Amino acid sequence: MTTHPLAEQPISPDHIGLLEGLATTRSIRRYRDEPIPEQVLRDLSFAASRAPSGSNRQAFRLLFLTEGELADRAKALIARGAERVWSAKRTADGYDKGSGSHGDSPKGRMARAMDEHVANLSRVPALVFPVLLRHRASTPTEGASVYPAVQNLLLAARAQGYGGVLTMWHTTVETELRSLLKLPENGFLAATITLGKPVGGHGPVRRQPLSTFVFHNSWGSTPAWAVDPPGTHHTGTG
Amino acid sequence: MTTHPLAEQPISPDHIGLLEGLATTRSIRRYRDEPIPEQVLRDLSFAASRAPSGSNRQAFRLLFLTEGELADRAKALIARGAERVWSAKRTADGYDKGSGSHGDSPKGRMARAMDEHVANLSRVPALVFPVLLRHRASTPTEGASVYPAVQNLLLAARAQGYGGVLTMWHTTVETELRSLLKLPENGFLAATITLGKPVGGHGPVRRQPLSTFVFHNSWGSTPAWAVDPPGTHHTGTG
Repeated sequence: MTTHPLAEQPISPDHIGLLEGLATTRSIRRYRDEPIPEQVLRDLSFAASRAPSGSNRQAFRLLFLTEGELADRAKALIARGAERVWSAKRTADGYDKGSGSHGDSPKGRMARAMDEHVANLSRVPALVFPVLLRHRASTPTEGASVYPAVQNLLLAARAQGYGGVLTMWHTTVETELRSLLKLPENGFLAATITLGKPVGGHGPVRRQPLSTFVFHNSWGSTPAWAVDPPGTHHTGTG
Repeated sequence: MTTHPLAEQPISPDHIGLLEGLATTRSIRRYRDEPIPEQVLRDLSFAASRAPSGSNRQAFRLLFLTEGELADRAKALIARGAERVWSAKRTADGYDKGSGSHGDSPKGRMARAMDEHVANLSRVPALVFPVLLRHRASTPTEGASVYPAVQNLLLAARAQGYGGVLTMWHTTVETELRSLLKLPENGFLAATITLGKPVGGHGPVRRQPLSTFVFHNSWGSTPAWAVDPPGTHHTGTG
């Protein structure tokens, strides 16, 4: 049995620091039409493997779909699911009304980015399906055994000049997708992640101010220290 | 209204890279008896805020408990819950039998570390309770809106020389804890995180080999590139 050359290859060198990477990783929805090298897929998987999981059991699996008939069919199916979810959301959340109808508002920009993302899903360089193999009935906390790994994967993508987004595009097509991919019955399909090399520049991460969600020593008590560092961009939404 | 000095203070400088941080962050269960500075609490919260959440809604809250009567009572309660959970697990998973009874086996070391962790929980420097405010009935994927933030928080702790562990110690005492902390009814208590400055050295992160959980282009197909980088430590379990 020959060993794959990557077994001798350390993980890629770092270009950005840990705190900086945590602060600047954002959802990337537009990708160049380029395959993702095996070294990158390996390094992303390795980062995911380092995440904690219940009893260190690592009951999740990562299914990467890049090319071939099955991957193409899965991408087409996810594209269809995303169209459904996004068109419903576009209406429900009023993306076509108020500030959403102004192309230069944050909401309008978001709507355009989503339109393009959804339109291009069938050609995304990679889909990743994290699947948790349940050893007992579903519990609300089971996500603690898979989403930390998902976040590690997205952070590792950022480290290497790639990007992705954590979505639930599979929701409306899950039955068909599970059958297409032959997922096991006890496999909880935790997300649909799209991955690729980002197109163009992308804006800052926007979140609510720390004071809206950090409490200290009692529920509802906002500590004086819950202030964002200088230059932080906030969301307008609440 | 005076501004807190941290509002002018950038996040702390980085000492380790992003991929290195992802690869080396591990559960830390033994802490020095030292309070965690406000700058650290702020930087951890900031990193948590950067994580993705459903529709970027950031419906989670982070409750830090460090000192004071309520914090002390919560720590004591978590210690009690942990004793129950750990003693049941110690028996169920056979930590006192076979390799677990040998002090120098990985299982024996793990059992000792857990014994000590549980015995010291009432004096842990900080507890963090991530609470997701549900806007609809519980779904298996709701964890996607809170556990990425939890992972960012743990990674940010690593970046600053701190450490923590994601636990479910609250499980058996949740009713009492919710009442003590006055958590809202729609608040999903997603985890109990303990945090502090690590005591002593700690070993490598141990996981299963990539080949056990990475598939490419079809379920069950292990790609040749799914090989860990040189020097990776693996678990015996799984």
